[in-house]
Amino acid sequence: METTTTTLAEYLFKRLHQLGVDSIFGLPGDYNLQLLDYVAPSRLHWIGSCNELNAGYAADGYSRVKGIGALVTTFGVGELSAVNAIAGAYAERAPVVHIVGTPVRQSQESRALIHHTFNDGEYERFDRMQEHITVAQAILTDHRSAPAEIDRVLQQCLLHSRPVRIAIPLDMVSLRVPKLALHHRLALPLPCRQPHAEDKAMKAILDRMYSAKKPVIIVDGEVRSAKIVDEVDHIVKSTRWPTLTSGFGKSLIDENLPNAYGVFTPEHKEFVDSSDLVLCFGPHFSNTNSFLYQTLPREDNTIYIHPTSVQIGSEIIRDLPANYFLPQLIGHLEMEKLTSYDPQLTHPKSIAPPDVKDTDLVSQAGGFWHRMSTFFREGDIILAETGTAAYGANQFRLPPKTSLFKAVTWLSIGYMLPATLGASQAQHDLIARSEYHDLLEARSILFIGDGSFQLTAQELATIIHRKLNVIIFLINNDGYTIERAIHGRNQRYNDITSWRYLKGPEFFGAPTEGEYAAHTWEVRTWGDLDKALTDERMVKGKGVRMVEVFMERLDVPPPLDRTLAMQLAREKEGQ
Amino acid sequence: METTTTTLAEYLFKRLHQLGVDSIFGLPGDYNLQLLDYVAPSRLHWIGSCNELNAGYAADGYSRVKGIGALVTTFGVGELSAVNAIAGAYAERAPVVHIVGTPVRQSQESRALIHHTFNDGEYERFDRMQEHITVAQAILTDHRSAPAEIDRVLQQCLLHSRPVRIAIPLDMVSLRVPKLALHHRLALPLPCRQPHAEDKAMKAILDRMYSAKKPVIIVDGEVRSAKIVDEVDHIVKSTRWPTLTSGFGKSLIDENLPNAYGVFTPEHKEFVDSSDLVLCFGPHFSNTNSFLYQTLPREDNTIYIHPTSVQIGSEIIRDLPANYFLPQLIGHLEMEKLTSYDPQLTHPKSIAPPDVKDTDLVSQAGGFWHRMSTFFREGDIILAETGTAAYGANQFRLPPKTSLFKAVTWLSIGYMLPATLGASQAQHDLIARSEYHDLLEARSILFIGDGSFQLTAQELATIIHRKLNVIIFLINNDGYTIERAIHGRNQRYNDITSWRYLKGPEFFGAPTEGEYAAHTWEVRTWGDLDKALTDERMVKGKGVRMVEVFMERLDVPPPLDRTLAMQLAREKEGQ
Repeated sequence: METTTTTLAEYLFKRLHQLGVDSIFGLPGDYNLQLLDYVAPSRLHWIGSCNELNAGYAADGYSRVKGIGALVTTFGVGELSAVNAIAGAYAERAPVVHIVGTPVRQSQESRALIHHTFNDGEYERFDRMQEHITVAQAILTDHRSAPAEIDRVLQQCLLHSRPVRIAIPLDMVSLRVPKLALHHRLALPLPCRQPHAEDKAMKAILDRMYSAKKPVIIVDGEVRSAKIVDEVDHIVKSTRWPTLTSGFGKSLIDENLPNAYGVFTPEHKEFVDSSDLVLCFGPHFSNTNSFLYQTLPREDNTIYIHPTSVQIGSEIIRDLPANYFLPQLIGHLEMEKLTSYDPQLTHPKSIAPPDVKDTDLVSQAGGFWHRMSTFFREGDIILAETGTAAYGANQFRLPPKTSLFKAVTWLSIGYMLPATLGASQAQHDLIARSEYHDLLEARSILFIGDGSFQLTAQELATIIHRKLNVIIFLINNDGYTIERAIHGRNQRYNDITSWRYLKGPEFFGAPTEGEYAAHTWEVRTWGDLDKALTDERMVKGKGVRMVEVFMERLDVPPPLDRTLAMQLAREKEGQ
Repeated sequence: METTTTTLAEYLFKRLHQLGVDSIFGLPGDYNLQLLDYVAPSRLHWIGSCNELNAGYAADGYSRVKGIGALVTTFGVGELSAVNAIAGAYAERAPVVHIVGTPVRQSQESRALIHHTFNDGEYERFDRMQEHITVAQAILTDHRSAPAEIDRVLQQCLLHSRPVRIAIPLDMVSLRVPKLALHHRLALPLPCRQPHAEDKAMKAILDRMYSAKKPVIIVDGEVRSAKIVDEVDHIVKSTRWPTLTSGFGKSLIDENLPNAYGVFTPEHKEFVDSSDLVLCFGPHFSNTNSFLYQTLPREDNTIYIHPTSVQIGSEIIRDLPANYFLPQLIGHLEMEKLTSYDPQLTHPKSIAPPDVKDTDLVSQAGGFWHRMSTFFREGDIILAETGTAAYGANQFRLPPKTSLFKAVTWLSIGYMLPATLGASQAQHDLIARSEYHDLLEARSILFIGDGSFQLTAQELATIIHRKLNVIIFLINNDGYTIERAIHGRNQRYNDITSWRYLKGPEFFGAPTEGEYAAHTWEVRTWGDLDKALTDERMVKGKGVRMVEVFMERLDVPPPLDRTLAMQLAREKEGQ
């Protein structure tokens, strides 16, 4: 009989493993220690992070690469430290499972005055707080329903690509539950054909596509979470229609296609507005993903493919999951009925970076982002933190099979370094499964400002000690440059303390020799940059490599240059 | 007319300054930048922290020393990072004002899709989340009521010694409000005499005090937040009754008094239980402040002085604020009617530390905590982080006019380093006001484990760059020793990455020469420790001084030794 049951903890961890979680992030705490005993036996790698916020960010980064991520925290102190990361995953649709070890049921029911509470017997506050930032929650208190509860919230996590929370009292961890369901990977509920909605949407879209004379495709970032990357790729390639991406959508299509014209900036607005059909996939229209709403397509000429609906102009046709509807659309599409035309747009690849001399100081205006593109290789994951990096990244020219992750809407500074831990670990896990573009090794490359780096700097230690293949370009521009661009360019509150950043790897315990030795470079001129990028230790190194690139305080890429100009204009007006 | 009004921001910051906030912590964000323009003109020092959790912890540490603390964060991303700190302030009664800069009202009302939201037009989630962890909240939307709203929540903060939250939309910051109320410091609502309750409590307590043959006083930590430190000090000194403190209450009375017998441990339980009257001030009976409930006094012989009630046995007489009632009690008390007796307890001062040799390795069992006491001076603030430090600190012998802060109930590892920033800044501000024991300089001394240090390590940078007089003893015992003691002593999840801790000051930008140069010491033996403690650079240094003390993984003080023994026993039983 023993073999027909397993422990609740193992049920949870095996479910996660089946869904693609190979590594799980978190910190121990005395309400989750017994739970953690089951991590390794369930074939998950435990990645101890330096703090819970970082673990949350790491799980988020992992989930964006691998389709699901998870972290384990402890009741109260641990889980609350992670809420900002969970909220970010909600905002930008990253499927993160937050598992919280909670006190034994006896303590909760008797309102015992224990640590990690407010010493008042009230145990449900943290449950209530996190309902606002998760798409589903399970509080496990009965072993009979616990497996189904776990399955329910995992389904919600994957269906909506948004975080969920599972709370497990310490005394339930090793309870026996039926093992049967584990024989099959958890299936997601399937869409049903909705004849009325589907036929209406299909006809309208096909009619519009066939009659379009000057169509345009826009690929936005929710294409990833809606799981329609392949379908969109197919449509872009087969229609050959001119295609732009949002910043969030950048890297979701191959930028080397002749009809991929780069990031939709305000300069393209007139062209897009003059189109008679805009096909917009996975729209995510926050101000920061739309150049302050300057790059929203006109509603009257646009068809939007949302995660679970199709919108034609202002009419929303619901209950059509994109990853169900698009394959149908592709099946019906008669390619020979589609127009083909020359949009007379400039392809980003045809633009040369500004001329510079080796002795000139590196600057964004001088083409830093553009120039960095020569450094990228197939398989790279490139991450650009909130600040000048996230906007500068719009200028990258990406090789095929690269992924770019940048700040989009949540824009929590500090996110990207731990997210790099997560993304790089996911990359590593995919390579180990032979599921990463047939590559045997690959790099994760982070661009981050000094201000952002300080928030979560310690996670560099985890990256180092996990021996991950990570390269960091730290832009030292002496403070919060993005805030300086917005307001208070000379105000002291936008200053930060001055660190010796390149001592970081040594402080955090990096090896000084051997194949995982950390290497560092200081870059002030283009000549310095070239040397760093071509240094054998950079090119062939395996451990962490870190480049400190000095830039001027107010050296900003578009559209921050415009923001800064507005501040200067306000100052002139004496506001 | 202009002079009769001021800006809303200035109203808020001047109110805080009047209440004792000289320094304010936080980070800039684009929904608070204009608010921050008013910080310096309101005569507040801006202390830019490395991240919001740390800023919250720092404000908490500041408030415990100075009676109030404040931080400023930005909507969503900033405030959510701070919630764990705010929750800790709630749990342990630290009066922290959390000010959040929010988007302009137009964005909120129009449900605009902006950054730092979930891109869904819903702006109130973060308000709702934080109602659970604050004692009062103000969301300012109307300039007419805004000053009164600010006053209301500040009163609640001080009355209950618990955190409050004030949300200010960006477009309200510079609105004009009446200045009149600022002419007077904000007054707290006064208690009214409640004849029935007061007379009943007074009579019962005086009767019990006069008839007691073997009375005992217990001083617990809520004495500080109830603002009855002076009254309790008076009662302890004038009655000369044997007095014990909880861990939370340690340092609230002068340990050099002959009737101050140190921390109430299970060894005192029989003595306390045999007493016919226990006067217990400011009780805070969490498991971690009571040796797992082993040091709770018996209800039937105890009178409890709670913040707003008196409890005699099981009967609670409410509506008697302690800082109103105790002065009345002292006024009525006829000292000659009180007993005096020799409790035959050992005074901690009479115990010598174990004998050790200079070449012996430093250990907790060998008396590390006891020996450190010789290093302390009048005016020191001593902070002991969750882990072995917080328990070991029970063994400190503290000179007069020192304060000890240690983890009590919230026990969020990572708290104490930023709290040291806050406490030390408060100490500095008090000295600048000539309100610190007539001292012209004073130190803050932190004891912290390697595991805890990693969570918030970057705040060392702020301590360094603020030139604060801080000494850090980092106990390197190779991981989360407190978790190892509880469960999984050999499990990998209790490991941490190995850092070169003493490189920290260099990495974080400490001066290498001059009067604020940072100095570091590595300590393995008692001889090393003596050398570090007597080194001129330690004794006369002004900048950060950091001592790495190596200890064995499982070297733990009571009561963790017992916890560890229980784990070993369970292992033996094969559980």
